[in-house]
Amino acid sequence: MERKSVNVGLMGFGTVGTGVVRIVSAHQEDLFKQTGLRIGIHKILVKNKEKKRSLTGYEQLLTTNADEIIYDPEIDIVIEVMGGVEQTKPLILAAIQQGKHVITANKDLMAVYGAEILNAAQENNCDVFYEASVAGGIPILRALVESFSSDRITKMMGIVNGTTNYILSKMSREGADYHQVLKEAQKLGYAEADPTSDVEGLDAARKMAILSTLGFRVPVNLDEVDVKGISHISREDIAYGKKLGYEIKLLGLAQRDDDEIEVSVEPTLVHKSHPLASVNGVFNAVCVHGEAVGETMFYGPGAGELPTATAVVSDLVTVVKNMKLGVNGRGMVAPYKEKKLKTDDKKFSKYFLRMVVADKRGVLAKITQLFADNHISLAQVIQQPHHGGEHAEIVLVTHKISKRDLDLALLYLRDMDVTKEIKSCFRVEEGEEK
Amino acid sequence: MERKSVNVGLMGFGTVGTGVVRIVSAHQEDLFKQTGLRIGIHKILVKNKEKKRSLTGYEQLLTTNADEIIYDPEIDIVIEVMGGVEQTKPLILAAIQQGKHVITANKDLMAVYGAEILNAAQENNCDVFYEASVAGGIPILRALVESFSSDRITKMMGIVNGTTNYILSKMSREGADYHQVLKEAQKLGYAEADPTSDVEGLDAARKMAILSTLGFRVPVNLDEVDVKGISHISREDIAYGKKLGYEIKLLGLAQRDDDEIEVSVEPTLVHKSHPLASVNGVFNAVCVHGEAVGETMFYGPGAGELPTATAVVSDLVTVVKNMKLGVNGRGMVAPYKEKKLKTDDKKFSKYFLRMVVADKRGVLAKITQLFADNHISLAQVIQQPHHGGEHAEIVLVTHKISKRDLDLALLYLRDMDVTKEIKSCFRVEEGEEK
Repeated sequence: MERKSVNVGLMGFGTVGTGVVRIVSAHQEDLFKQTGLRIGIHKILVKNKEKKRSLTGYEQLLTTNADEIIYDPEIDIVIEVMGGVEQTKPLILAAIQQGKHVITANKDLMAVYGAEILNAAQENNCDVFYEASVAGGIPILRALVESFSSDRITKMMGIVNGTTNYILSKMSREGADYHQVLKEAQKLGYAEADPTSDVEGLDAARKMAILSTLGFRVPVNLDEVDVKGISHISREDIAYGKKLGYEIKLLGLAQRDDDEIEVSVEPTLVHKSHPLASVNGVFNAVCVHGEAVGETMFYGPGAGELPTATAVVSDLVTVVKNMKLGVNGRGMVAPYKEKKLKTDDKKFSKYFLRMVVADKRGVLAKITQLFADNHISLAQVIQQPHHGGEHAEIVLVTHKISKRDLDLALLYLRDMDVTKEIKSCFRVEEGEEK
Repeated sequence: MERKSVNVGLMGFGTVGTGVVRIVSAHQEDLFKQTGLRIGIHKILVKNKEKKRSLTGYEQLLTTNADEIIYDPEIDIVIEVMGGVEQTKPLILAAIQQGKHVITANKDLMAVYGAEILNAAQENNCDVFYEASVAGGIPILRALVESFSSDRITKMMGIVNGTTNYILSKMSREGADYHQVLKEAQKLGYAEADPTSDVEGLDAARKMAILSTLGFRVPVNLDEVDVKGISHISREDIAYGKKLGYEIKLLGLAQRDDDEIEVSVEPTLVHKSHPLASVNGVFNAVCVHGEAVGETMFYGPGAGELPTATAVVSDLVTVVKNMKLGVNGRGMVAPYKEKKLKTDDKKFSKYFLRMVVADKRGVLAKITQLFADNHISLAQVIQQPHHGGEHAEIVLVTHKISKRDLDLALLYLRDMDVTKEIKSCFRVEEGEEK
């Protein structure tokens, strides 16, 4: 007897969970036309059944016991939108053991245990999809898996955290100070009370771990992502960047050369002619470079109840189609390639440096000589007085150099008696010739 | 006995066909890992077997007889990259009748006979995929079908023709004249010797017919797309646009309000804060607006041997996976919704108007009164002398008005004795608040 419907167990009934229920109920007919099956929400896991909720009519489905979902044989699919890592992972694995397909929006979980969960799913012929975990409204994971299936991805670069992009956009537009803008963002709900995970780049790092694992088919661990946050970016950095033709963005970068990869998240000066430079506010965008296709970019809302819920429901449609066709467990490929991480002498980039030095004759010559001695040639140099008097400020942009040469030069620079302070050092990403 | 390999019949061995063969041969191992099947090129349909080709080693596969592909029981999949409409359609339909899956890059064919071909494919449980037909390097069709499956698309807007975007970008950057830039584009191979199809918007109209048919699930005919080309755009239009904060782009627009749709291709002033305004050169980009997800954009190369060939091979991978799973014929949904086209009183936009009028006292008052009488309120007005003397130039931008009110006002305007010439009239697209 062919099945007529599928039952979903929803774990979590916050904003995203509510959005999922809303979409599934509003689009019943369209979903039926696409899949030939009725999709019903069967149970909903919550912490507190008595809590007042914006969406009513689902009170009988609520449960506080995860086992009622995991071990309910009538439930085919688990949608996990409650968050959490260590306490959530065993629930997901147990559901997979029970043959349930899983859709999750949980980047924290997938960044850390993605490979393990994908492997468990493959062993049990279960689907695990997690489009909503990266750049909520942008179908980037699907694009990586399907559209680039015949290409070889060499680079993924993007703005994958809306909070920091909101802050940097506002600092750039208004010449405002970091702390002031952060406070405003917190008031508006764009930044959390404890903003550490966003502003120190950890959230973006999780997304880059997920993207690089999937795009390069290599298991990238979260602690293998080099991370720098935005909390030290000053108005002066942004102003100098603009002067030189750049916007500062918190960029995630995953790059593969030969078979070695590097993955990082750090503030980067992006040239104004690069499409990422004009991605502003809470929007996200990811550039994907394929050997054959060249440069592409995917742009959209990075978060929000409905965009994230839409991504979840798109995954749901894929799982339901796969169920009807009996082909689950083959969507997201568990990483199978050997991982080789680049050493610093193989990571190349242009860099922007800003430093305060003693305003003596010959200082600039000394410093440029130091760079020359360290195989670093310079593309641009600006020198000007610093707060009237004995100090001068030097801003320079290098040509492409290795990270090792940069770090070595920084070491020598700090040691020079004329150096007062190295204010900032950022990667530089040039625009594309179009 | 499970099958170990699939055989492809390639129709056409030009640049795209050559690219397909190159990718399939270079990525054999990756393709095998993804699909579990060996993919082989079995036969190649060409016009002239003796022609010298850049890719050698495939001479024994060449045939000049399409039947040798269509009726070869060993061939599972036909890839059509030879172009042509009326002579190609029966070949595609015959291949489908023979149970072969079809991948095509042929926008001319799919824009005119897409619904018929999709229906034939559904009846025969065959896949028909045509990602390469729209914005070659951008996986936009897949996104429409899969990622927006649970959303309701209300608007698709984009730059879907690289030639015209190259010309307009260059006119804007260099303040150059249309005819001069067109000549250069022809020399560089970005425009054809007969550029009509590109510059008059027909190529873009075909792509919009394909996009709107798929995105709205309504059979949109090519002749239902309102088309205006770029050949009448002057340096003055571009300069005025810039002054007001806009770039002129040839925009395809497909919009749905309630259940009524409008589809058009026309030069449009796009505000600089809109992401489409910074899409330059031969790049393409499509914004898709979903009720739930909000604004998204897909950006990439619109054409080129490798991007187009990559899109073809991505489709090939999907077909091969579907074959292995026995689930062909359910990918691209034949349009099933009833079509209701908007009448002009339901098409709303802001408009830019530039006209030359007699330089007499009270002319501006007369003209603005005419607009007021026709329910048109104005957002911006510029008046200045025109070539020193008796004439004045008036440039104005309206608030949102219906196309019917616009056309009526233009009719009255042309009738006024003070009107010398209406130089240009373009749609205006504002930026997004971000």
